[in-house]
Amino acid sequence: MSGVITLTTDFGTDDTYVGVVKGVILRLNPKALIVDLCHSIEPQNITQAAFLVNSSFRYFTWESIHLVVVDPGVGTARRGIILQTQHPPAIFVAPDNGILSFIAMECLPKGREVIVKDGFMFIGEPGRDLQAFEISNSRIWLSPVSPTFHARDVFAPVVAQLSLGVPPKSFGRPISSIAYLPTPVPVRDAGGLLKGKIAHIDRFGNLFTNIREEDLPGRNAGIEVCGHIIAGVKKTYADSMGLLALMGSSGYLEIAANSGNAARMLQAKIGDEVVVK
Amino acid sequence: MSGVITLTTDFGTDDTYVGVVKGVILRLNPKALIVDLCHSIEPQNITQAAFLVNSSFRYFTWESIHLVVVDPGVGTARRGIILQTQHPPAIFVAPDNGILSFIAMECLPKGREVIVKDGFMFIGEPGRDLQAFEISNSRIWLSPVSPTFHARDVFAPVVAQLSLGVPPKSFGRPISSIAYLPTPVPVRDAGGLLKGKIAHIDRFGNLFTNIREEDLPGRNAGIEVCGHIIAGVKKTYADSMGLLALMGSSGYLEIAANSGNAARMLQAKIGDEVVVK
Amino acid sequence: MSGVITLTTDFGTDDTYVGVVKGVILRLNPKALIVDLCHSIEPQNITQAAFLVNSSFRYFTWESIHLVVVDPGVGTARRGIILQTQHPPAIFVAPDNGILSFIAMECLPKGREVIVKDGFMFIGEPGRDLQAFEISNSRIWLSPVSPTFHARDVFAPVVAQLSLGVPPKSFGRPISSIAYLPTPVPVRDAGGLLKGKIAHIDRFGNLFTNIREEDLPGRNAGIEVCGHIIAGVKKTYADSMGLLALMGSSGYLEIAANSGNAARMLQAKIGDEVVVK
Repeated sequence: MSGVITLTTDFGTDDTYVGVVKGVILRLNPKALIVDLCHSIEPQNITQAAFLVNSSFRYFTWESIHLVVVDPGVGTARRGIILQTQHPPAIFVAPDNGILSFIAMECLPKGREVIVKDGFMFIGEPGRDLQAFEISNSRIWLSPVSPTFHARDVFAPVVAQLSLGVPPKSFGRPISSIAYLPTPVPVRDAGGLLKGKIAHIDRFGNLFTNIREEDLPGRNAGIEVCGHIIAGVKKTYADSMGLLALMGSSGYLEIAANSGNAARMLQAKIGDEVVVK
Repeated sequence: MSGVITLTTDFGTDDTYVGVVKGVILRLNPKALIVDLCHSIEPQNITQAAFLVNSSFRYFTWESIHLVVVDPGVGTARRGIILQTQHPPAIFVAPDNGILSFIAMECLPKGREVIVKDGFMFIGEPGRDLQAFEISNSRIWLSPVSPTFHARDVFAPVVAQLSLGVPPKSFGRPISSIAYLPTPVPVRDAGGLLKGKIAHIDRFGNLFTNIREEDLPGRNAGIEVCGHIIAGVKKTYADSMGLLALMGSSGYLEIAANSGNAARMLQAKIGDEVVVK
Repeated sequence: MSGVITLTTDFGTDDTYVGVVKGVILRLNPKALIVDLCHSIEPQNITQAAFLVNSSFRYFTWESIHLVVVDPGVGTARRGIILQTQHPPAIFVAPDNGILSFIAMECLPKGREVIVKDGFMFIGEPGRDLQAFEISNSRIWLSPVSPTFHARDVFAPVVAQLSLGVPPKSFGRPISSIAYLPTPVPVRDAGGLLKGKIAHIDRFGNLFTNIREEDLPGRNAGIEVCGHIIAGVKKTYADSMGLLALMGSSGYLEIAANSGNAARMLQAKIGDEVVVK
């Protein structure tokens, strides 16, 4: 194992939740390298967490462990799960509320069919590209388990043990499907227009869409967002005065403003439509 | 020593204060494992810091060192102190302004009498459950000491040396009492009603009270807060639509809202009264 | 090398930018000790970053590596540079947009003449107090390099390799000058009044000026800021009721309010004038 554990939550950083999770991890593995990926997920916004983790985890060393906790159903019957991927090799630990299905799909070979039934995504046979395990072995959890803080009492001990090299199957039985959350993907309408959405807005007011470079008709595309038309896809922020579109660093079309704040200029918000012509 | 050092301050994370404190610690002990517990304590709110550290430090490995700096009297005659506890074993470093008295009381065996006189809490004889030391040995401080940043110039070198295994007595003489800050505790009025307070509000708008499970008459208690009555104490957030009461993960009664923000719904603030019927 | 890498950016902590940079660094050097110095630089405020890094980096162990990224020109022809200082020994990695010229000047021996021409500051001959290198060896960069995220794709691999002991000259050719950004310094007007500016405002509302102790006529100076006159320079916050002036922990004159928020009381903002009489 690499020893690297990333944390993505909607806990914010104004409380002691994140610090306490780290305390539990370091108690079990003092050599763990814990990296905060993001704690500012909008409260209970599972889709945003999935989007950000998927565009970030490939930059970490192989076999890093990624704890992802946005968990409105904490303390109910929803399972905790471990997802192990091969391409690239990584381990994810999360509540089974759909937060890992987008990542699971992105780690399948191109063209592999994704089977979804009754809100669950089929993972494939053991030994294939994906493996998943239920977290049910309560022996390594903290005791008692608080019904409202599984990140501390269940998931932190699990990721700490995983980072020590304990294999995923030690934490519970293999499972053949995980909860599925539909991810908003761009759609092409009858007239051939591509319609995507704003998936995230960063500190600079840059708008991350869910449109990828291969979705675009070309660099000359016109982009309509919040009533504004932007002509062409530029290379970097300094390539235009004012509003511009460019391929963002996470691989998605981005709307930005040179030395300005596109979100404020456009009064844009997460979920707003982005149309490519 | 565990090598773990936690930091709790009112410094926020928008300035370089926290980073500089870490720089000084790592200069003396590059193997220190520094964990941010909380830097969003309300400026100068000593009580809030005491409450949050007390409910968090037990999740860290034994013999961790906890630096707690909320220090309106920095640069005055107020002492710096080291508090060493046995149950559980931990070390606290802080200005002697009452910030550690709640933790000291909570680390005494149940039923042990707490003696408070003239604003100081008696610590007991050496070798007992608690030991305290004045920080007076200036040899290990940075030089010159800024009158406004003892965290960097005094406390950081102390916690770094402690994390290297230097014993607390090396930093100054043992002291028999530490400054005492009364902690708001729930009181029972003439009519038998239990009256507590909101001690902290988290990012989700959950209200942490200072009422513990053993204070409650039972799970059927009615709870009144900000003019609303909540019936019964639930197990987890998903157990109710809208407002609910439950035992929070830190061991105190919590008021929350399923997929909502209780603080906003109730326009609640720290210090507001919570009545149990 | 010390293995310590500090990060100063305008990325904020609500996105995954900082976490991803850490992921890339740890992939190359799992033993790197990464410290967040500040990620709340005002977007694109190069001067603020220079001021804060200069007043902070001396508290880190010698030969620490300081990554400083405020980079409105990312993806344009602006170079990336490495600056190596001797007094104290440190290494800085940054876009060559003037962000390092203030630090370079502060690391020159007192009285050494600074030669500035056409917006560039002359660095001196190799082997002298300062050395600078262009970052041009693309072999160690991530591939492809995003035109909008050089911190991840160019600078993170560079600081990781530097922290492993790879010498700065391995990353590109030595350069004799770096981009120069004029730093606001206090000026003395015809009538002998010293006029400085507010350079930073911290979480407590304390106003950091750019006036040093040696600039002051003495501790009895009168200070005018935002229409208020403050008499004398105090030692610490508790030395006065209400507004006061004191020598701040970073070595600059500071305007504060005892248990209050000076910025709010004065409605002050970065750039406002501070006059010493």
